[in-house]
Amino acid sequence: MAAAAVSVTASSHAPNGQATDLRSTFEQVYNRLKSELLEDPAFDFTDDSRQWIERMLDHNVPGGKLNRGLSVIDSYRLLRQGMGISTDEVFLGCVLGWCIEWLQAYFLVLDDIMDGSLTRRGQPCWFRVPKVGFIAVNDGVLLRNHIPRILKRHFREKPYYVDLLDLFNEVEFQTASGQMLDLITTHEGEKDLSKYKMPVYHRIVQYKTAYYSFYLPVACALVMSGENLENFINVKNILIDMGTYFQVQDDYLDCFGDPQVIGKIGTDIEDFKCSWLVVQALERADENQKKILSENYGKPGSEHVARVKTLYKDLELQAVFLEYERESYERLTASIDALPSKSVQEVLKSFLGKIYKRQK
Amino acid sequence: MAAAAVSVTASSHAPNGQATDLRSTFEQVYNRLKSELLEDPAFDFTDDSRQWIERMLDHNVPGGKLNRGLSVIDSYRLLRQGMGISTDEVFLGCVLGWCIEWLQAYFLVLDDIMDGSLTRRGQPCWFRVPKVGFIAVNDGVLLRNHIPRILKRHFREKPYYVDLLDLFNEVEFQTASGQMLDLITTHEGEKDLSKYKMPVYHRIVQYKTAYYSFYLPVACALVMSGENLENFINVKNILIDMGTYFQVQDDYLDCFGDPQVIGKIGTDIEDFKCSWLVVQALERADENQKKILSENYGKPGSEHVARVKTLYKDLELQAVFLEYERESYERLTASIDALPSKSVQEVLKSFLGKIYKRQK
Repeated sequence: MAAAAVSVTASSHAPNGQATDLRSTFEQVYNRLKSELLEDPAFDFTDDSRQWIERMLDHNVPGGKLNRGLSVIDSYRLLRQGMGISTDEVFLGCVLGWCIEWLQAYFLVLDDIMDGSLTRRGQPCWFRVPKVGFIAVNDGVLLRNHIPRILKRHFREKPYYVDLLDLFNEVEFQTASGQMLDLITTHEGEKDLSKYKMPVYHRIVQYKTAYYSFYLPVACALVMSGENLENFINVKNILIDMGTYFQVQDDYLDCFGDPQVIGKIGTDIEDFKCSWLVVQALERADENQKKILSENYGKPGSEHVARVKTLYKDLELQAVFLEYERESYERLTASIDALPSKSVQEVLKSFLGKIYKRQK
Repeated sequence: MAAAAVSVTASSHAPNGQATDLRSTFEQVYNRLKSELLEDPAFDFTDDSRQWIERMLDHNVPGGKLNRGLSVIDSYRLLRQGMGISTDEVFLGCVLGWCIEWLQAYFLVLDDIMDGSLTRRGQPCWFRVPKVGFIAVNDGVLLRNHIPRILKRHFREKPYYVDLLDLFNEVEFQTASGQMLDLITTHEGEKDLSKYKMPVYHRIVQYKTAYYSFYLPVACALVMSGENLENFINVKNILIDMGTYFQVQDDYLDCFGDPQVIGKIGTDIEDFKCSWLVVQALERADENQKKILSENYGKPGSEHVARVKTLYKDLELQAVFLEYERESYERLTASIDALPSKSVQEVLKSFLGKIYKRQK
């Protein structure tokens, strides 16, 4: 199961010009935040250390699709529909969006070390860059530490400052806990498929991916709108459900998607990932088919991968997925329609609309 | 330069019985905090993950000298002298003390990975334990995440809750920044003594060690007493100065201390550490002596170490240290005496009294 990337951009809410504007506004805010961090009076930078941080930030923070970050301001706009939002509010929404991108960068830098990965976003993983190596562990820590520095500078006087700190702390805790569960369940050396069951899968996805990728952006927008998150437990549950559905799609596309469209060749089978597909296969396989899985899953070599894919097809997992997708969409739509606030419904429908039946 | 350990215990403020009581109270609080974390409703633990966290905590958090943690309640008592402190306050002081111990554990777990260390506190480093390996990176992250979980549970309703969050965030940022400076200055592969200069040394020690080891415990006690830390800039500066003096002692004892007394055999010379001694030596060495240093510093083998030690003696670094110690004590005492509050003076004098002329 790869870390999911939320396909949520501003483009469906605004004419193209506005969407481009928002992305370019968002990208400009990165430069401002970076400059502020490089002049943070809480640390007495040397030239070398300032250069190190700048290079580390540019390598790790802005190179992704920025969908999580952009969706904060996107959600905020929908929540404030009809009320208009000021330039200041757009800026603060972008700042919170970047905090999520910083959080993502922190997780990815450390995950790549733990997984021994080679590349990320089409370039070498940060710890693979010459002269970086294990210093990347501390760089990951610094990325994480930048978030409260950014929040303090821009939100210290807001009545919801402490709620933002609590929110980021809780979501980070949940993500790290999900990562632990994934690591101790699926990376324990002995390749043991018996642990790959649906409740385990759901728990890992919920904590490791859904909280920070789906719940956090909307929660940031709600907090900025002055809302108390305790009144939005249903919204949280829907977003976690949606994040889970998104990850199932990710797992499906890794095997059955068009590499030309998704932009990469999936390797979940070779990598012994706890993918939704293998969990479904294990639920449906007879003894002979289980043997095929244990002999081929997680082995390098195209013949092993092909054997697993054939088994998936024999078990009709494509049809199982289509049915899962249909059910998920219906359940999510019904849950959204049951919410009391029309503007919150719009935020969630906008998210759902962007991911339903996605091909990449 | 090894991470410093603050030699501050409760024993000099109270008859021995009370000191023993405090330590045992403190140790009991660990068990309560651990139980709370293992039942944290923000994560849906499996049995395996609960066991993992418990083992990880027991291995990494409580095995140190606990001096940083104990000094929170120690300082708080001195600040509240004559006013008496309740059982609740003792408990909360212990909780903050443990947060510092958790912070320390987090740094040590990650530092050991970055340094490739073998042992810590007389047992294998956490990442060296079978089946742990790089999962230790995420465990370090979890230790860090436990701090805001603990603070939220026990301080969320206090008027100073947000100040505690800000304090821990700022000190962690400074420590990680100091660690970065140390890593990029002293671990860059090519052994280059030309970077080892006193301003660099001071900056590393101040950020990497003094903030969290000396300032943080007192700052926690001040915040708990309802004080605004912005009014205690002088106190902060004195504690940073004291923390620097403490680290200089550490560096001195690593070479000239009695291994029987300090409990370990120093390896700063072999390890090419940016020790106060080598920086002093470089300031005083002629061209020939610099050559000796560059040929022997950071090389394994007792003949190289002996050659460096002889040079230190030729340069009379023992006398230089004694003079530094005398000056530091005088300067610190004068600064403390200039503070307006008698009880704050007592806190700082208690710290200073415990480290002045220490032999271990």
